[in-house]
Amino acid sequence: MPMAGNTFGNIYKLTTYGESHGKAIGGVIEGCPAGLELDFDAIQYELDRRKPGQSKITTQRKEQDTVEFLSGIFEGKTTGTPIGFTILNEDAKSKDYSHIKDTYRPSHADYVYEQKYGLRDYRGGGRASARETACRVVAGAIAKQLLQQVKVNAYVNQVGSVRLNKAYQELDLSKMDSNIVRCPDTETAERMIAHIDEIRKQGDTIGGVITCVIQNMPVGLGEPVFDKLHAELGKAMLSINAVKGFEYGSGFDAVTMKGSEHNDAINADGTTKTNYSGGIQGGISNGQDIYFNVAFKPVATIMQDQESIDKDGNTVTVKGKGRHDPCVVPRAVPIVEAMAAMVIADYYLLNKVSRL
Amino acid sequence: MPMAGNTFGNIYKLTTYGESHGKAIGGVIEGCPAGLELDFDAIQYELDRRKPGQSKITTQRKEQDTVEFLSGIFEGKTTGTPIGFTILNEDAKSKDYSHIKDTYRPSHADYVYEQKYGLRDYRGGGRASARETACRVVAGAIAKQLLQQVKVNAYVNQVGSVRLNKAYQELDLSKMDSNIVRCPDTETAERMIAHIDEIRKQGDTIGGVITCVIQNMPVGLGEPVFDKLHAELGKAMLSINAVKGFEYGSGFDAVTMKGSEHNDAINADGTTKTNYSGGIQGGISNGQDIYFNVAFKPVATIMQDQESIDKDGNTVTVKGKGRHDPCVVPRAVPIVEAMAAMVIADYYLLNKVSRL
Amino acid sequence: MPMAGNTFGNIYKLTTYGESHGKAIGGVIEGCPAGLELDFDAIQYELDRRKPGQSKITTQRKEQDTVEFLSGIFEGKTTGTPIGFTILNEDAKSKDYSHIKDTYRPSHADYVYEQKYGLRDYRGGGRASARETACRVVAGAIAKQLLQQVKVNAYVNQVGSVRLNKAYQELDLSKMDSNIVRCPDTETAERMIAHIDEIRKQGDTIGGVITCVIQNMPVGLGEPVFDKLHAELGKAMLSINAVKGFEYGSGFDAVTMKGSEHNDAINADGTTKTNYSGGIQGGISNGQDIYFNVAFKPVATIMQDQESIDKDGNTVTVKGKGRHDPCVVPRAVPIVEAMAAMVIADYYLLNKVSRL
Amino acid sequence: MPMAGNTFGNIYKLTTYGESHGKAIGGVIEGCPAGLELDFDAIQYELDRRKPGQSKITTQRKEQDTVEFLSGIFEGKTTGTPIGFTILNEDAKSKDYSHIKDTYRPSHADYVYEQKYGLRDYRGGGRASARETACRVVAGAIAKQLLQQVKVNAYVNQVGSVRLNKAYQELDLSKMDSNIVRCPDTETAERMIAHIDEIRKQGDTIGGVITCVIQNMPVGLGEPVFDKLHAELGKAMLSINAVKGFEYGSGFDAVTMKGSEHNDAINADGTTKTNYSGGIQGGISNGQDIYFNVAFKPVATIMQDQESIDKDGNTVTVKGKGRHDPCVVPRAVPIVEAMAAMVIADYYLLNKVSRL
Repeated sequence: MPMAGNTFGNIYKLTTYGESHGKAIGGVIEGCPAGLELDFDAIQYELDRRKPGQSKITTQRKEQDTVEFLSGIFEGKTTGTPIGFTILNEDAKSKDYSHIKDTYRPSHADYVYEQKYGLRDYRGGGRASARETACRVVAGAIAKQLLQQVKVNAYVNQVGSVRLNKAYQELDLSKMDSNIVRCPDTETAERMIAHIDEIRKQGDTIGGVITCVIQNMPVGLGEPVFDKLHAELGKAMLSINAVKGFEYGSGFDAVTMKGSEHNDAINADGTTKTNYSGGIQGGISNGQDIYFNVAFKPVATIMQDQESIDKDGNTVTVKGKGRHDPCVVPRAVPIVEAMAAMVIADYYLLNKVSRL
Repeated sequence: MPMAGNTFGNIYKLTTYGESHGKAIGGVIEGCPAGLELDFDAIQYELDRRKPGQSKITTQRKEQDTVEFLSGIFEGKTTGTPIGFTILNEDAKSKDYSHIKDTYRPSHADYVYEQKYGLRDYRGGGRASARETACRVVAGAIAKQLLQQVKVNAYVNQVGSVRLNKAYQELDLSKMDSNIVRCPDTETAERMIAHIDEIRKQGDTIGGVITCVIQNMPVGLGEPVFDKLHAELGKAMLSINAVKGFEYGSGFDAVTMKGSEHNDAINADGTTKTNYSGGIQGGISNGQDIYFNVAFKPVATIMQDQESIDKDGNTVTVKGKGRHDPCVVPRAVPIVEAMAAMVIADYYLLNKVSRL
Repeated sequence: MPMAGNTFGNIYKLTTYGESHGKAIGGVIEGCPAGLELDFDAIQYELDRRKPGQSKITTQRKEQDTVEFLSGIFEGKTTGTPIGFTILNEDAKSKDYSHIKDTYRPSHADYVYEQKYGLRDYRGGGRASARETACRVVAGAIAKQLLQQVKVNAYVNQVGSVRLNKAYQELDLSKMDSNIVRCPDTETAERMIAHIDEIRKQGDTIGGVITCVIQNMPVGLGEPVFDKLHAELGKAMLSINAVKGFEYGSGFDAVTMKGSEHNDAINADGTTKTNYSGGIQGGISNGQDIYFNVAFKPVATIMQDQESIDKDGNTVTVKGKGRHDPCVVPRAVPIVEAMAAMVIADYYLLNKVSRL
Repeated sequence: MPMAGNTFGNIYKLTTYGESHGKAIGGVIEGCPAGLELDFDAIQYELDRRKPGQSKITTQRKEQDTVEFLSGIFEGKTTGTPIGFTILNEDAKSKDYSHIKDTYRPSHADYVYEQKYGLRDYRGGGRASARETACRVVAGAIAKQLLQQVKVNAYVNQVGSVRLNKAYQELDLSKMDSNIVRCPDTETAERMIAHIDEIRKQGDTIGGVITCVIQNMPVGLGEPVFDKLHAELGKAMLSINAVKGFEYGSGFDAVTMKGSEHNDAINADGTTKTNYSGGIQGGISNGQDIYFNVAFKPVATIMQDQESIDKDGNTVTVKGKGRHDPCVVPRAVPIVEAMAAMVIADYYLLNKVSRL
């Protein structure tokens, strides 16, 4: 429901603002129904899962990421009015970025922001920084509470070529946070952590895949034609920094399947024998588990010198400086969950008017 | 800009209506700037590329798919007012569908529509039919004319396990329509056609991949944060019937790459040495080619009997009946192009207000 | 929910297209819940109330204004999918307008359309013609059926200086259509008709006021802050051709009142002793009757010669030609009702998500 | 572009949050083009014109209303990213409101909020308080700077029955702020002030009218059909607390005029001899001055005891307590200007895509 691109959702709606090194980031949540008793610890818990400096395999920037709510809540409950909130930027070392004031870092948004807007807040990537996603986590945490019985769980499925070779049904999703890489399989998690650590020591970065599973879904969420449930989930995921691909249900594997294999036979109770559909048919949830994969590229900030240009088109060397994550997926898990929860909450509310 | 899900776009906006077997399908295009001289033959040409019955590897339903414009055009030019149009449904054999009146076909939208709305127009899949995409092709064809120098070309990259092992740069994209499967490589095209034909004879269906390339892009299109250009392209593609996945630039391959490999070094003129970014950085076009892949599942309608249930939960056998495509990708090429052109046109207009 | 200005509503949403002398006008209604059994005669009845040529005091253009529904309805019920419809333009005498091809009529939209868009469909006023409002009447008629117990009634309160000096409570609103001017007080109606007839003979036009009353309102409709119920009603009315003013409840009379007089004391059952609030407090309905006045200017098309300019800035005389209404209010009554019904239906649906 | 009603505008868009007695109120401005050098003093100046406690005829609540910008501005210029801002609530005497915790004040939003949401923040009226309009003033002040040559001036035209009997052309609009009632005619201003003071001493309140004039308008702003420029201006005004009516140009006086009198003859240069159209024809600006009147009711908070009910339907007496304005119009002048400036800025940006 764009125009300027800072709003997500139709009824359950988040508008965010804020740059990486400004005074604060924040947002406004609209459309949260009145009467929801909020668990503030649960909200902060989600922020803590995303916050920088949480382990040796994440960026060393230190932010408390304490959310302050300014409105829309009275005596612990939502009032139906907009929920305004802010998160201060505390550890903003803007001087670290003076070297890129006039220089465009490869595969960053520096060049395109300057071309689009004619100027840019270069400090820490400005608005293009993933710091903005903290606001999504706040709105997602409230969406989770709104959804109650629907469970949204994401986990790291792949880091570089270290892959978890198990389906989500074989995993104990409650173990997701038991290690710093957020892969619920301990053995694979250890290999992932070792891999990230090695990459980090090289001053390099690596990509990964997050899988998200949504369980206990009601039937009927999704708005045909353009706003199919998976289309909105896809957009939600693709809007997260560093995401390069999205697939749901059978995904890219469906390409080599025949219809007779791929079709999900329907049981007497409306459930299906297989679930290649990924819980969505014709853009509408059918009550089966929704599951999807999100591909992340390696972070563009590396600790190596790179060739680039400055504002005037002169060839320059961009020094490997600044704090960053060697692999974005461990911290992206709560972001994926947050965006998924927001979509489901929004479509849950949208569906309230689908029939008389 | 949803709510009811039948509108796509922000400024350049398409609203569609129509069921597979109703009187007509149609739409309203809003936001097309005034003064555009329309090439009506070019619009009909795109519809002909999508229309059923065009070859032995597509459905045998016969529709002329002639578009009639009702408004918004005066003396051959757009007037800035909404462009209303209709396409009649001529070959609607609704009787073919009486057998599914009370039955839910596996992996179709029958069950979810009934659950969501309490009733459904079961004839030919109703609103869930891909017939609706003809309206997208109309709006996309006009978007292409609006874009002028920007070129949007899609082609079939894979059918089942028959894959085109060439990058788009190695292909002559002008040859796309020289064969009925719409793969610009003649030899691969022949193998794809043979494969589809074989699948068709089995009464089965098969998936595929379409690759789309957008060339001569201006710099600066894309709206951070939630409306990144690739996020909107992804949603556009995922809203097309049977799509299961989307990746752009390096896509899922980025997962196993290091930042030092993946970063696109910038040349003195602002172009990049490599283009793993797929022409988009931070959600904004950088002027390089945009390219992406779209994965399609096998069509759910097959000529084989399948187990399912009826409205009352009784187990039934769904007979293999009705006209359908053994593989959706040849006809989906113009749809992918149409959706891509609409996104680019919309973001081109959105970008007109990004700076003073 | 604009951008190009042809869409009205948030959930219950109408998008229209069409020019006065094009092939057809039409629209798409989105967001009508599934399962509503439609009374098609009631829809056509509303169109007949608006249609031209219905009496000696309306324009003599002859249009049947028969609506054809193309989608969204199955076996007489709404399906939840968009309702597309068209109304043909039959009596379009475009030649009558060749004299204004290059000339701007005073107080018409000719000049501004040409300046804004660079070209215009000058025939019959093109998109600026009130002919477009027929589509609103269709959507409003369905909204009325959706609302069921809520009653939306408008009537002519004033024509020029002939004023109905009775409050709506003193009138039998069911008599509204018993005369051609649509004033429920027979004696006043006769004076209004005589006045319009006299104005018509002078080749002139006259303004008027329509009062609208909405009864049996549920409590709680209205969205603070910017989308207060009366703000949306006001916009709805002001979007109707020729409207110059809107006031609700006490309206402009509130200016000279004291708070102690104006406040509506609350009874034990939540009703109020007086209703200066006009059924809306803080932008939200309180269950009392909503009532408002809409002021219409005299139609700009007159049968007298007027001074003006042509495209090149030359002074010209615009001849008094073309068919028109001497007073717009009799035919505007169903339009006012339609817009009011759409707003209430939309806010009724919006309110379904206001609390858990 | 609603849903939850806290957003105004299409491209230039304001989303607000905050209750009267919460920690802070604030907002997010989206769509302000990049590169605008901001005059922060001018923004604060507008807030000072609106702030409480500024004179003897306004409420005695003391708020500094200092706006803090959190994002979207870099080195004094807008960056094209969202402008987040907060204004602290400092003088919130919530205890003053404990007497209405369970009681509904007549003609306030207490009852309807409780009915709609099931609970309410009763302190100072919560979200329904006009305190929220401070955020509008911030966004309006920036809109004014964006508009540059377009001048938006409002003034008090009437207080109770004290009326300024001069057209805006006869006034020196620069004198607007030379007195505390904001009427540019000194003699009338004195009578207005005396009248308000008298009303205040009675513990009562009184209504008024604000006139707004927009000069140096470009031609072509306005989006037919539903988003006519005056329809959006009307909605903007009607969304301000206590507004009961809106009329533009000839307004309600048009009702008794004939077309031959009311039509604005066009001069050779495109200007008009008269301006009954109020600078808008067919919903689009014609370059002439836009002018309109806004009617305000008397404030509902009075210093007199009133009959009402509590939550349980018991009859109670609401005591005359709390701080309030005896007449809202002096402080509403900057709010009217702010909303008008936002509409014009938004439509100015919207118009950038009207033609090729």
